[in-house]
Amino acid sequence: MLGLMMKTPLLLSSILTHAAHAHGDVEIVSRTPDSADHRTTYRGLYRRSSQLAHALVALGVKQGDRVATLAWNGYRHLELYYGISGLGAVCHTVNPRLFVDQIVYIINHAEDRFIFFDQSFVGLVKELMPRCPVVEQWILLGDAQQAKAAEIADLPAYEDLMADRPDEFDWPIFDENTASGLCYTSGTTGNPKGVLYSHRSGVLHSFAAALPDACNVSLDDTVAFISPMFHAMSWGMPYCAPAMGSKLVMPGQKVDGESLHRLFEQEGVTFANGVPTVWLGYVQYLEQAGVRPTTLNRVLMGGTACPRSLMAKLEDDYGVEVLHVWGMTETSPVATLAKLKASHAKLPAEERRDRKVKQGRPVFGVEICIRDGEGDDLPHDGKAFGDLMIRGPWIARSYFKMDGSERPDGWFFTGDVATIDAEGFMQITDRSKDVIKSGGEWISSIELENIAMAHPEIAEAGVIGVSHPKWDERPLVVAVRRAGSKLTTGELLAFYQGRIAKWWMPDDVLFVDELPHGATGKLLKTKLRELYGNHQLPSQPQSSAG
Amino acid sequence: MLGLMMKTPLLLSSILTHAAHAHGDVEIVSRTPDSADHRTTYRGLYRRSSQLAHALVALGVKQGDRVATLAWNGYRHLELYYGISGLGAVCHTVNPRLFVDQIVYIINHAEDRFIFFDQSFVGLVKELMPRCPVVEQWILLGDAQQAKAAEIADLPAYEDLMADRPDEFDWPIFDENTASGLCYTSGTTGNPKGVLYSHRSGVLHSFAAALPDACNVSLDDTVAFISPMFHAMSWGMPYCAPAMGSKLVMPGQKVDGESLHRLFEQEGVTFANGVPTVWLGYVQYLEQAGVRPTTLNRVLMGGTACPRSLMAKLEDDYGVEVLHVWGMTETSPVATLAKLKASHAKLPAEERRDRKVKQGRPVFGVEICIRDGEGDDLPHDGKAFGDLMIRGPWIARSYFKMDGSERPDGWFFTGDVATIDAEGFMQITDRSKDVIKSGGEWISSIELENIAMAHPEIAEAGVIGVSHPKWDERPLVVAVRRAGSKLTTGELLAFYQGRIAKWWMPDDVLFVDELPHGATGKLLKTKLRELYGNHQLPSQPQSSAG
Repeated sequence: MLGLMMKTPLLLSSILTHAAHAHGDVEIVSRTPDSADHRTTYRGLYRRSSQLAHALVALGVKQGDRVATLAWNGYRHLELYYGISGLGAVCHTVNPRLFVDQIVYIINHAEDRFIFFDQSFVGLVKELMPRCPVVEQWILLGDAQQAKAAEIADLPAYEDLMADRPDEFDWPIFDENTASGLCYTSGTTGNPKGVLYSHRSGVLHSFAAALPDACNVSLDDTVAFISPMFHAMSWGMPYCAPAMGSKLVMPGQKVDGESLHRLFEQEGVTFANGVPTVWLGYVQYLEQAGVRPTTLNRVLMGGTACPRSLMAKLEDDYGVEVLHVWGMTETSPVATLAKLKASHAKLPAEERRDRKVKQGRPVFGVEICIRDGEGDDLPHDGKAFGDLMIRGPWIARSYFKMDGSERPDGWFFTGDVATIDAEGFMQITDRSKDVIKSGGEWISSIELENIAMAHPEIAEAGVIGVSHPKWDERPLVVAVRRAGSKLTTGELLAFYQGRIAKWWMPDDVLFVDELPHGATGKLLKTKLRELYGNHQLPSQPQSSAG
Repeated sequence: MLGLMMKTPLLLSSILTHAAHAHGDVEIVSRTPDSADHRTTYRGLYRRSSQLAHALVALGVKQGDRVATLAWNGYRHLELYYGISGLGAVCHTVNPRLFVDQIVYIINHAEDRFIFFDQSFVGLVKELMPRCPVVEQWILLGDAQQAKAAEIADLPAYEDLMADRPDEFDWPIFDENTASGLCYTSGTTGNPKGVLYSHRSGVLHSFAAALPDACNVSLDDTVAFISPMFHAMSWGMPYCAPAMGSKLVMPGQKVDGESLHRLFEQEGVTFANGVPTVWLGYVQYLEQAGVRPTTLNRVLMGGTACPRSLMAKLEDDYGVEVLHVWGMTETSPVATLAKLKASHAKLPAEERRDRKVKQGRPVFGVEICIRDGEGDDLPHDGKAFGDLMIRGPWIARSYFKMDGSERPDGWFFTGDVATIDAEGFMQITDRSKDVIKSGGEWISSIELENIAMAHPEIAEAGVIGVSHPKWDERPLVVAVRRAGSKLTTGELLAFYQGRIAKWWMPDDVLFVDELPHGATGKLLKTKLRELYGNHQLPSQPQSSAG
């Protein structure tokens, strides 16, 4: 028997209309490259998104069409979020930091009919245009003069398309499972894969991310989107924060420490999201300039693990709480968050931090588990580590044009290896493909790397498994010494003594001049395995693995 | 084109499993009538709800069956919430405070197969049993000894049904629109009508009610359900608070000021819900006993408007914030809440309170509007008042066994008359059926009553419209003077001077010894109209309506 509640679908356009009605005069501030900050309100966003929707209809955009963006965080990008998705089309946010070949692949794979791009990507677009035959029209996010300056024949300007359109749009009502957004993940192997978000997942994720024990987003907040709007929809914040009526701040292209500090102070930012690298730059600026944040009270940090020292600086020195989050493009992305339990309130500060540096516990709505190589559930003892699995209404079940790739058990395989402790805190220990399988047991490559990098004479280190006749794989450290260092293999291995179980001890160390990196600066483990996977381990390897 | 996110349905059982996994050791405390407080945890709730589900299956309960409760707020009632609904059956919470005839009607109308009742309702059940032939079995919420003491032949005890059942249940996955709960509204006219909640509405309402700008429910909270679990599911808190991992406190039957204060202090309650009457009793006790709350920081107050003086006492004298909420059984119930805007932070205290005594703004997810008699939208100017309409995913579209009664425009007619001001704050001014229609315009009966009751010599007053040949209706005040008062009609009418528009001036005053009241203490306007609706107004009525 079904209930008798209204069949109201969860649509992203309801966020736009709610914000305009309930928080119409709340400000939206965007930093622009060459001019004064742009200021509007939710009422203004509503009007411009409506105009855009009319313009898209005039261009012939239909429900399900992919319309792409190549843009930094700013008001026009936000209009595209709401205008495109509100219409029932798919807002495809292209990551301009990828290699050109990958971007070409992504655009053609997505079959983007239109691409809206920022002025700073004119050069990139000129490279892309001849290689992306699917695109019917490229549109500059600017006015006619700026479009002309781009020196691309017949390039339309966004402001011209918008001009004179009605500023009220009758947002269509449709199935809440309709696709709303598309984001490609850039794996280190194979082609990028597209995550196809739905209106339902976007609205539910907004509710979950705003909860007091998640990001605690309120109308009393001023929220800055620092994570790019082409990275998992800036972690869903362009939906969540307007739904809650927060004031919005978008930084444009500049996210160096000084730019952030000035923007935060000028606009009274209370909450911002970003990867550790951004916050490292921010803290370095605060230290060098001898200034302090006066309004920022918390940051959402994810993408990679937050270093303990960075957390300590932000929290202890500057009173800025770190909300340590874990997620992926495939998880919308907020999935787990290291919020302490009520019972932790009286623990010593360092014991509280021991928990906060983990990736945390699932927010209400998602479930996680860890499984061994046979697919059996592992205990939550903080020691056993296995494949991290996740499920819930804002988790991807498969990828664009790969429908049917979903797992029959209904879980998503994250590709991360993790532990879960008795209190439910999850900690990533490795990537599945990087874990070293030795004698039927797993060794965390990341933990071995972290120890090497804690050595004062090591600049960078990568650890991979190399084949071993008896143990299947054994760990090899590939390291770059700091300038002037004469560190030896024996000295580095001695440094591991007492820090790991005996059977985790690396079998060898290779000192090299540099390690291979990907487009976003990440260490390329695949390349490392390609280069050093066949390294000949010392003569009697079994002794070190006893 | 549909998105590719997981098709995870929103089910109430996911709240139970999340609470058990993520907050397993968090306490649930129930005050019991004659014994020590009962203490368990979310893990304990999970186990007992699982045992109950097994017991229900053994009884033959199937999906869609109605299983009823006659119970105060306590752990067994909570087990019934999760056990019954988790199975896919419908948890029907019967209001024991209604007249016996109404309860009989409700049980037979719902076709309840089983009814679980508290020991304190043994007398009531003996009256109901012969008149409720649909019920297959009545079950006492207690042990065998207590069931025996009830002196009802073959009465099974809850604890016997539960005994030796497995404490793990494989909660079924089904359509999230499946009915989960049933609550009848007791109108002052006609038969009670059943609101049939769904799993989807329950989960979405939990998200919305927990948001920072709604009830701000967190794992750091200790939440007391003071509103009965048979009143709109204690305002959804038995779903919301476990989803967030709050510690729970249930008061049983005693909600007098002293009992509440002792319970709150003993358990460290931070947040509780209840009608103004409850909080009046609480504040009176605090004043008389000269004590203060040390942990309570906010209360959710609704049901009827919070008097300004009560809000002032709680907030100014005791530091307890009032979350002034409006809702109905049909709205799950949290719909609007008087949360101030960020821009109000710097207003003087009394101007902030001017806004907080209104019923507030819609929480994200629901929409409201006001309409005139012709169904046209009225302006949001704080003056125009009209029928309050509401819609959203946790709003009823029709009533049980009245499917098809829904409005074609998709809105729910609340039966309240309200204003909405330019800032979006809604204020109830009357019930639709009580509003006085004079010369095509509306006069608020509640406003006229409030003014009369503000007169120091008036104990109680009701205002109704009586027929008028020229103006259709004109207001009549029916009032009870305080003991010893000789107040005259002229003196009371003079009291209205300057407080209302001239054409609102009541045409006459009738002094009576008492006013008619319903079972829950509410003034019966229908009875008032029956008694005095044909009152002969003074000879020249048109002059006072000029």
